[in-house]
Amino acid sequence: MSKDDLVLLDFWVSPFSLRVKIALEEKGLSYVAREEDIFGGKSDLLLKSNPIYEKVPVLLHNGKPIVESANIVYYIDETWASPRLLPACAYGRSRARFWADFIDKKVFDAGSSIWKSKGEELESAKKEFIDVLKKLEGAMGGKDYFGGDEFGFVDIVLIGLVAWFDAYEKCGGFKIEEECPKIGSWIKKCKKRESVAKILPNPQQVCEFVGMLRKGHGIE
Amino acid sequence: MSKDDLVLLDFWVSPFSLRVKIALEEKGLSYVAREEDIFGGKSDLLLKSNPIYEKVPVLLHNGKPIVESANIVYYIDETWASPRLLPACAYGRSRARFWADFIDKKVFDAGSSIWKSKGEELESAKKEFIDVLKKLEGAMGGKDYFGGDEFGFVDIVLIGLVAWFDAYEKCGGFKIEEECPKIGSWIKKCKKRESVAKILPNPQQVCEFVGMLRKGHGIE
Repeated sequence: MSKDDLVLLDFWVSPFSLRVKIALEEKGLSYVAREEDIFGGKSDLLLKSNPIYEKVPVLLHNGKPIVESANIVYYIDETWASPRLLPACAYGRSRARFWADFIDKKVFDAGSSIWKSKGEELESAKKEFIDVLKKLEGAMGGKDYFGGDEFGFVDIVLIGLVAWFDAYEKCGGFKIEEECPKIGSWIKKCKKRESVAKILPNPQQVCEFVGMLRKGHGIE
Repeated sequence: MSKDDLVLLDFWVSPFSLRVKIALEEKGLSYVAREEDIFGGKSDLLLKSNPIYEKVPVLLHNGKPIVESANIVYYIDETWASPRLLPACAYGRSRARFWADFIDKKVFDAGSSIWKSKGEELESAKKEFIDVLKKLEGAMGGKDYFGGDEFGFVDIVLIGLVAWFDAYEKCGGFKIEEECPKIGSWIKKCKKRESVAKILPNPQQVCEFVGMLRKGHGIE
């Protein structure tokens, strides 16, 4: 579709890489994903492209690095217009930026607290995680997607993180669908989309990866 | 200049409110600032407008709330085109969003660690704060402003925080200008701008306010 040279510095299970890949799929863009060795040694290209955080994902567009995943999705939407991911009006965009930022500040950390903890601490981590999801249900209101009738920017920002939700459920012994039915049905709808189904990794593999992290943290 | 109804839920010394007021001044927009009683009791309007964080600033544009200060500045720039604050190209905007986010994640917290600490802890807080500013000097490169030749979005995001820099220097016994001369000269240039000179509060009053916070934290 495009003559642009797109290279993604990637890590297969990173929720932040996943959201960028889903955005690229939505726009029908071809790209090369270069898997980074996160634990063994990051590439010079990654260190040079993102010297501040030294983290994936980085999208190189004709050699120019764009960093921080929600920022990359925003850039993709501004650069390739169709299909539109952000709302057309400035107010709608301000709401989308607000919720994307809320998701970035809360969801991954709250989820990590679940797999990092046991006993009482685990119960409080689960409560916090569910509280975050309930706030997101409030943001969705009665709509199908965060963007309204259409899958859009905020949906993409959240759906990458959903890749880890099965692992949180397994570690925490709870069902997101039961606690937050609106999020549960949103997840089902999103997973039926071609872009999402193609990109989200196998839940079992994510659970194994999180199990490895738990062992590293002395939890299992 | 405009028939828009603009109300800012404000707190005089908030670096985050200050940046919004500077953006409004840059655009030549009239607004009503409603001072919030942060410590005594927030208004129902604030709690209703920003139920997630319950924080100033909130900008009400014809009654619609926009929240989170960098997000508000972004909205102001998208809604009132002139003078342009964000770069015209998508890549420039992605860099501006990246650095605004870096500033939001690092500068206020690093500065707060200075006024909240003593002894060895204070030395390490100063080191961290200077390190953050040095990274920002790197972002500026050889340019006059973060936006290049013109004062822009990232400059506005940082300049609100500068209101507290005198207090950090006083608490930490150091001079930002000596440690980070490029930032020092950027501050001088910015302070000469009409919008900045009009909005930034008297440094002595900010120092007194921070002194009060220090007493509240048992530091002084």
